[in-house]
Amino acid sequence: MIHIFSYRNTLPYILLLPASFIFPYPLVDSTWGVIIVSCLEGRVPQPLCGLVKDPESLAREVVRLLQGKRLVSMGTSGFGSVGYPKTFPPFLGDALRETGGRLVVLTGASAYGMDEALVERGVVARRYPYQNNPRMRQLINDGIVAFQDYHLGEWPRINAPAILSRLTGGLDIAVVEASRVTEEGIIPTASVGAGPAWVDQARYVIVEVNLDASPALEGMHDIYAPKPGEPVPIRRVNDRVGLPYIPVPKGKILGIVESRGIDHGGEPAEPGPVEKAIAENLLGFLEEEVERGLLPKSLYPLESGVGTVNDAVFKALREAGFRGLTAWTEVVQDSLIQLYQEGAMDYMSCTSLMLTPGNLEYLYSHPGEFKGAVVLRPQDVTNNIEVIRRLRVIAINTAVEVDIYGNVNSTHILGSRIINGIGGSGDFARGAYLSVFIAPSTRKNGRISSIVPMVTHVDTPDHDVDVLVTDQGVCDLRGLSPREKAELIIEKCAHPDYRDLLRKYYEKALKYGGHVPVSLEDAFTLHVNLRDRGDMRLGA
Amino acid sequence: MIHIFSYRNTLPYILLLPASFIFPYPLVDSTWGVIIVSCLEGRVPQPLCGLVKDPESLAREVVRLLQGKRLVSMGTSGFGSVGYPKTFPPFLGDALRETGGRLVVLTGASAYGMDEALVERGVVARRYPYQNNPRMRQLINDGIVAFQDYHLGEWPRINAPAILSRLTGGLDIAVVEASRVTEEGIIPTASVGAGPAWVDQARYVIVEVNLDASPALEGMHDIYAPKPGEPVPIRRVNDRVGLPYIPVPKGKILGIVESRGIDHGGEPAEPGPVEKAIAENLLGFLEEEVERGLLPKSLYPLESGVGTVNDAVFKALREAGFRGLTAWTEVVQDSLIQLYQEGAMDYMSCTSLMLTPGNLEYLYSHPGEFKGAVVLRPQDVTNNIEVIRRLRVIAINTAVEVDIYGNVNSTHILGSRIINGIGGSGDFARGAYLSVFIAPSTRKNGRISSIVPMVTHVDTPDHDVDVLVTDQGVCDLRGLSPREKAELIIEKCAHPDYRDLLRKYYEKALKYGGHVPVSLEDAFTLHVNLRDRGDMRLGA
Repeated sequence: MIHIFSYRNTLPYILLLPASFIFPYPLVDSTWGVIIVSCLEGRVPQPLCGLVKDPESLAREVVRLLQGKRLVSMGTSGFGSVGYPKTFPPFLGDALRETGGRLVVLTGASAYGMDEALVERGVVARRYPYQNNPRMRQLINDGIVAFQDYHLGEWPRINAPAILSRLTGGLDIAVVEASRVTEEGIIPTASVGAGPAWVDQARYVIVEVNLDASPALEGMHDIYAPKPGEPVPIRRVNDRVGLPYIPVPKGKILGIVESRGIDHGGEPAEPGPVEKAIAENLLGFLEEEVERGLLPKSLYPLESGVGTVNDAVFKALREAGFRGLTAWTEVVQDSLIQLYQEGAMDYMSCTSLMLTPGNLEYLYSHPGEFKGAVVLRPQDVTNNIEVIRRLRVIAINTAVEVDIYGNVNSTHILGSRIINGIGGSGDFARGAYLSVFIAPSTRKNGRISSIVPMVTHVDTPDHDVDVLVTDQGVCDLRGLSPREKAELIIEKCAHPDYRDLLRKYYEKALKYGGHVPVSLEDAFTLHVNLRDRGDMRLGA
Repeated sequence: MIHIFSYRNTLPYILLLPASFIFPYPLVDSTWGVIIVSCLEGRVPQPLCGLVKDPESLAREVVRLLQGKRLVSMGTSGFGSVGYPKTFPPFLGDALRETGGRLVVLTGASAYGMDEALVERGVVARRYPYQNNPRMRQLINDGIVAFQDYHLGEWPRINAPAILSRLTGGLDIAVVEASRVTEEGIIPTASVGAGPAWVDQARYVIVEVNLDASPALEGMHDIYAPKPGEPVPIRRVNDRVGLPYIPVPKGKILGIVESRGIDHGGEPAEPGPVEKAIAENLLGFLEEEVERGLLPKSLYPLESGVGTVNDAVFKALREAGFRGLTAWTEVVQDSLIQLYQEGAMDYMSCTSLMLTPGNLEYLYSHPGEFKGAVVLRPQDVTNNIEVIRRLRVIAINTAVEVDIYGNVNSTHILGSRIINGIGGSGDFARGAYLSVFIAPSTRKNGRISSIVPMVTHVDTPDHDVDVLVTDQGVCDLRGLSPREKAELIIEKCAHPDYRDLLRKYYEKALKYGGHVPVSLEDAFTLHVNLRDRGDMRLGA
């Protein structure tokens, strides 16, 4: 690999020749620092090489083209903090800061590093639809950055266009990370997210060719854009219905820049006794359903949120001898790859590969083995309720808190401080054949009960919560009335330390009667205890 | 019409001849009171006439066949209190009462008269997924009948089978009202609802041939059963993808009984100034969207809940000169028929015709005119999120209360007393291209504000609430952060009498900060005022 220039290395290797001396085709951008390695490596085909630009100049060019627009909308690739653009957004942030402009940042989902860089530049006015960066989160919770979470499956082609038509008159720029760009389009890296939707909607497209991206990614993507009036023609987890690249009309690409760095998932924490108990309880429930003939032996396609408990669940499935499993999910984590390696998992469909280096390396070095087994799709396909329902997905998502009537809060602490956003849990819980929510019965050394009289924020109402699993037990809530749910949840899923407190609340609520007995004065007493005394059990 | 016997008239006209004397084919049921008029009228073809039975004996036969099962599940047709069975369920109630058995009653949605008859017999143990009968409601709110509402689109083929497999080992009987029964299947009356799903799932099927049903209904139905793994092949409002009857395997019909009576919607109340203001505000918003090129001139297919405001909305659309409209909705009300008559509405798809006698008569007496313009479908098609999204439906639903952050309560008064159930509002709000909620800014002479600090029950979380319309104004909430929503809703949609109270709450909540500022102690103060003092404005 001839590494002529990387913007990060502040020009140590730059060839002191005009680029036109080496390449016969004209370079649109004539600055010396132009990135030419992509062309040399074949990441950018010759006819597009003229679009390869240095990111700083390109950022200024964008600002100039937008004629000093005060609010600029940027839609980027990135999901699960994988595959987001790393080079261009910070430069755009700098260029905007100079002109007093501000950014509306739209991603697929989380884009940790990009958020960090943009927060540093203080140019983010609005952010959608999900984030996981502590500094961005703080700005949102302080009311400085305007944020609203959206269901990730609807977001790119339904919510975003409606919002943008009012905010910035449509999407100004799309910035998409690529492993390669061809004359037909963009081959993404290890996530697809909302990239294809942004490319469709944006006035200008900027491609970031990531020189570290594995060539093994090519052929793993299935880019399909849901169209109004047409069914999404997917019938099985491994169906391919689209293209292996994001199509882009030739004139839409304003520039191509280089980037570096592979996005990894963090090393999963070793499951403790609580996580193991949750996993075992869920496993027991699934095994019983199979035994009763209510679920097939290979289950239905699995969706699972990200986290230690979810890892523990997959581990338990593996150990219990489940075979022929499939996953229709947002993010493929290590545990799924392990299931595949051990022959328990046949197909995985996702929008992001959030793997630790070892597993990513394994996947990339065995392209033949995984070809056909892993499909990377846009999030408006993976999270599409139409497809989720058709495939009879079993959704397993984590709740922040659940109330005794089965309503789920997935996002807000004490009803107010957002953590990340609803993400895909609303898509999967709504579309699923079986919607399971999991949670530890208590958090913070028992100071917080995940089972509360009333959730302080509702993301998934009771209608879409079939089964609740904690380390204490399993509650199959299907068909139960709210009163029946309350009794079952208190006895089987709440932590023993909290059962009396919850029973007392429920008895008080019963005095007011009703289909869903509620005592309005006492609904948030546990939360007030937590807020004011640091422990839900410490009453005034 | 030769009316030989109607069970309601306690045998005045019975012919004192054995039925076999008149009919050459053997009658399975040899009781004297057998219903033969259906055969005479051709509502039941000869080979099925042997199944025509008297409802009382049939009810006893069912109880006998179920071998004294204590809990019997009955799935019936009926949606919008139209097309539910009128004859058999009360007799089954009587027969069960004798043996100490109880009923799990599953409908499509509301079945007012059937609920009334069953409540009278005191045999209902459980009821799903929606009801509108005050006596049934009281039993549910008192915790005597176990009830849980479900999204009507998911209910028949996803929730119900999962619930029934546990409760009664599958569906025991389906009772479906028919305008005619053929050897191939059942031609429904003026609603389809969950009838086809119950017929598919039930061990025994009972058909109620309604002798008053109009022959004009034949050909209006499009019976399609969504199948796992397959897209619903509907691409336009008027597409026909199924059969004009509910297919039934021959051996599954246990008996055919006669019924009488046409189900009507109530005469809609004349809209008052509040309803007119809501309708005008919504109309203004839609016109603006069309002007800005964000909606086509003929809009997208409309869904609308039932009620005076909704009627007023359609009237306003008519008067504003909208043309080429279509409706993809649950229930067709008078106002839609009027739109059609005046040439403003092209196609209507629904699962129930809830019309006043005059309009129903008009529709039935002009079958040629409406053929192709009105399609009656199962509720798992009309309320299917897959199709709703594909058709870009504009959903207009009524809220009981909305909070300053845009969360909607559609079902529970003071968080506890259920009114009817979530119905289709959750299906349409979730699947819609544009989800509008409407509400009067106050109710009960100003004693209740529909805009509250925090809703006491969440049916539709903020993510699925695009636009809020009251008599005070319109709030386009798309893309706004919760803080922005709060300010807008208080200023534009709340009633002036309540703005100060809401502002004070919001200021207090802001002290706690967060993405969604909440003051846990004060969130329900207005509701407590209402509960204890009868007026939200009367504080302690």
